[in-house]
Amino acid sequence: MKAVILAAGQGRRLSGEGVFFPKVLAKVAGRELLYRHLKLLRERGVEEFIVVVNPWTKGPIKDALLRWGFPFRLVINERPELGNGYSLLQARDYVDGAFFVVMGDHVYEEAFLDEAIRGQGLIVDRSGEFIDRDEATKVILRDGRVRDIGKDVPGEWYDTGFFILDREIFDHAEAVLKEKGKVEMSDVVKRAELRVTEVSGRLWLDVDTPQDLKRATRFIVRRSVKPTGDGLISRVINRRLSLLISERLVNRLSPNQASLLSTLVGLLASLFASISPPLGGVLYQVSSILDGTDGEIARSSMKESAFGGWMDSILDRVVDFSFLLSLGLFLGPGVSWPVVALAIFGSLMVSYTSERYRAATQRDLYEDIPLLLRIGGKRDERIFLVMLLCLLEMIEECLWALALWTNARLLAVLFLVWRKGRKGA
Amino acid sequence: MKAVILAAGQGRRLSGEGVFFPKVLAKVAGRELLYRHLKLLRERGVEEFIVVVNPWTKGPIKDALLRWGFPFRLVINERPELGNGYSLLQARDYVDGAFFVVMGDHVYEEAFLDEAIRGQGLIVDRSGEFIDRDEATKVILRDGRVRDIGKDVPGEWYDTGFFILDREIFDHAEAVLKEKGKVEMSDVVKRAELRVTEVSGRLWLDVDTPQDLKRATRFIVRRSVKPTGDGLISRVINRRLSLLISERLVNRLSPNQASLLSTLVGLLASLFASISPPLGGVLYQVSSILDGTDGEIARSSMKESAFGGWMDSILDRVVDFSFLLSLGLFLGPGVSWPVVALAIFGSLMVSYTSERYRAATQRDLYEDIPLLLRIGGKRDERIFLVMLLCLLEMIEECLWALALWTNARLLAVLFLVWRKGRKGA
Repeated sequence: MKAVILAAGQGRRLSGEGVFFPKVLAKVAGRELLYRHLKLLRERGVEEFIVVVNPWTKGPIKDALLRWGFPFRLVINERPELGNGYSLLQARDYVDGAFFVVMGDHVYEEAFLDEAIRGQGLIVDRSGEFIDRDEATKVILRDGRVRDIGKDVPGEWYDTGFFILDREIFDHAEAVLKEKGKVEMSDVVKRAELRVTEVSGRLWLDVDTPQDLKRATRFIVRRSVKPTGDGLISRVINRRLSLLISERLVNRLSPNQASLLSTLVGLLASLFASISPPLGGVLYQVSSILDGTDGEIARSSMKESAFGGWMDSILDRVVDFSFLLSLGLFLGPGVSWPVVALAIFGSLMVSYTSERYRAATQRDLYEDIPLLLRIGGKRDERIFLVMLLCLLEMIEECLWALALWTNARLLAVLFLVWRKGRKGA
Repeated sequence: MKAVILAAGQGRRLSGEGVFFPKVLAKVAGRELLYRHLKLLRERGVEEFIVVVNPWTKGPIKDALLRWGFPFRLVINERPELGNGYSLLQARDYVDGAFFVVMGDHVYEEAFLDEAIRGQGLIVDRSGEFIDRDEATKVILRDGRVRDIGKDVPGEWYDTGFFILDREIFDHAEAVLKEKGKVEMSDVVKRAELRVTEVSGRLWLDVDTPQDLKRATRFIVRRSVKPTGDGLISRVINRRLSLLISERLVNRLSPNQASLLSTLVGLLASLFASISPPLGGVLYQVSSILDGTDGEIARSSMKESAFGGWMDSILDRVVDFSFLLSLGLFLGPGVSWPVVALAIFGSLMVSYTSERYRAATQRDLYEDIPLLLRIGGKRDERIFLVMLLCLLEMIEECLWALALWTNARLLAVLFLVWRKGRKGA
């Protein structure tokens, strides 16, 4: 299938009068609006993109399209002032059968598109959860088709700007153009009495103002947290703070830079731990919060990479090791160093056991054995405990606690996986 | 496709006169001959097995088939003395189109079957590498077809006992039966002037005597070593010894029991290391050699499991940790414990980096970055060095060497993967 991206809007509210900055190149959570459409639709099987632009923004959009490498055809709407329906008309010669039409200045999350691409006609949403409902285009339905549509219409459905159409739509657009001298999509939709498909409660919104950009970024970053995988402290404390940080950093830092930042703070924490454990402990917890941002930034800006995840994981182990070593050094010659060694070993093995499990089975250890989440011992939980005990200056107790907790957990994992293997095999 | 397994032979040379032990239930490298056929052909798409047995061995074979759970039909050859061609005739009503015919008392490696199932007629082998060539059935060809076949025929090709046939073969078998009063496969093959397909140099052999069983086991165990993944010491020393051990243990120990044995020796080594490092070091190297056997036994006896691999890997880490901890304890109060901690951390990270890489990319770190093999530091290499330095009673040097080697390697891995990520992404 093909997709027509309507990107001929002039985006004045975003760029200011007289500046010809293409709205679809505005970045939401580190990625251009247009890139988001292309990437997500490409992953869902779209083979060619018909991008309709205006004469003044053609240049930068073409440059971007060439850089990204998606299969595209650029079509110029010489008279964008005739409405976005007129932009659609420019795509007439390049589509066949069923095709998607997408408003270039909207943002959709993956779950929205997964459902929408299986629909028909206009995709409508009942919740309007993420949009400015007053400004939004409302739809009134009759028998599953559009009866009326517009900003001031008392409809209970919202026009999401995503369509699955066929060539019949062009006849309606022509008719509206003849009648009114210009043609907006809403007029075409109304005239065609388009069928609708409901996709409710998923993230989508349109971007008109700088405030919209910020809101869209915030929503996208928040949706980037994976539903499982967080320990208790992460869910209750770290994640909330790291999301606030990621929202602000996502347009400025790459995921790897965020990884590095968290690592540097962690190494700094280790340095301080050998002199002042309370200070070191607090910095360690700060680095633990920052440790959430690389993944959030990577996912929300579509910059995830296996290498990035690998690097982050190795650096976390280095930080954990150096912090515990420093705590041992702080205790001086009287240290029970085998306890430090046990704490280091046990902490590493929490991660080793689950990563080795994924390597062997391509499955998640915590999903297969949920009991482990209750035993705890994940990094966020360990670091929080370390911070607390460092603040209380209970350094020996801290090392003992870690050594016992993580190694008891290791025995539990061995037993639980062995039992599961016996049952499953 | 279906496969006919000829399993009505009486196996007198294997079991002794008067004992009705079904030859196809004899174990080669921990698995029954029949199981090997079913498992390997099932993996290659065979949907049903027609197993032809004699009246005296029907019972135990049926029990085994029910236990294994492959889709089968049991056919009884009431007069096995009429030859294996007569067995084939019993399968007449149960096959259609093309089908495989397999001599139940043969052993084939996977690579043989991968090629053989794409062939036609009789599969022949030019090398005869693994068989007793004097005893083997030779084939003379003309225009890609069998002209003559038999033990005493001066042919340059060997009959592998694996056939891809169609129903025409039954007419030839009937004709031979009428003419001679009995019917061997070789007579049928000759009469049909069967086409042949060459599959040379792959492991296959027939099992007639207890010596054949041992030879087959030895070959299968040797073929179980994965071509990559071994460190230098493993290739030069450990693997040779572990294969000798596995050959002897594969019919007696499960892979998990072999894992456990290696772990117990490793823990014993750790125990001794804190008293007598030379003794500990030697035992550590013994456990390192034994550590190869679980994988060899698992692969050669078709008992590989993700859980087994996981368990072995975790236990290896436990042994490495406890050995290094013990070496540190041996040094008493004067120990530079941070060096011990670094050696423990670095050793663990050798494995962590590559397992985490597999978890993230489903690829092998050493295949992607072969330079790492030259840097060394794999378990077999580390343990061998530890043994040498323990024998020389250079314990501090040993810990320093490990700490430096493994952590320098960690830095190298970080750099090399980072560089690869930049290029690749």
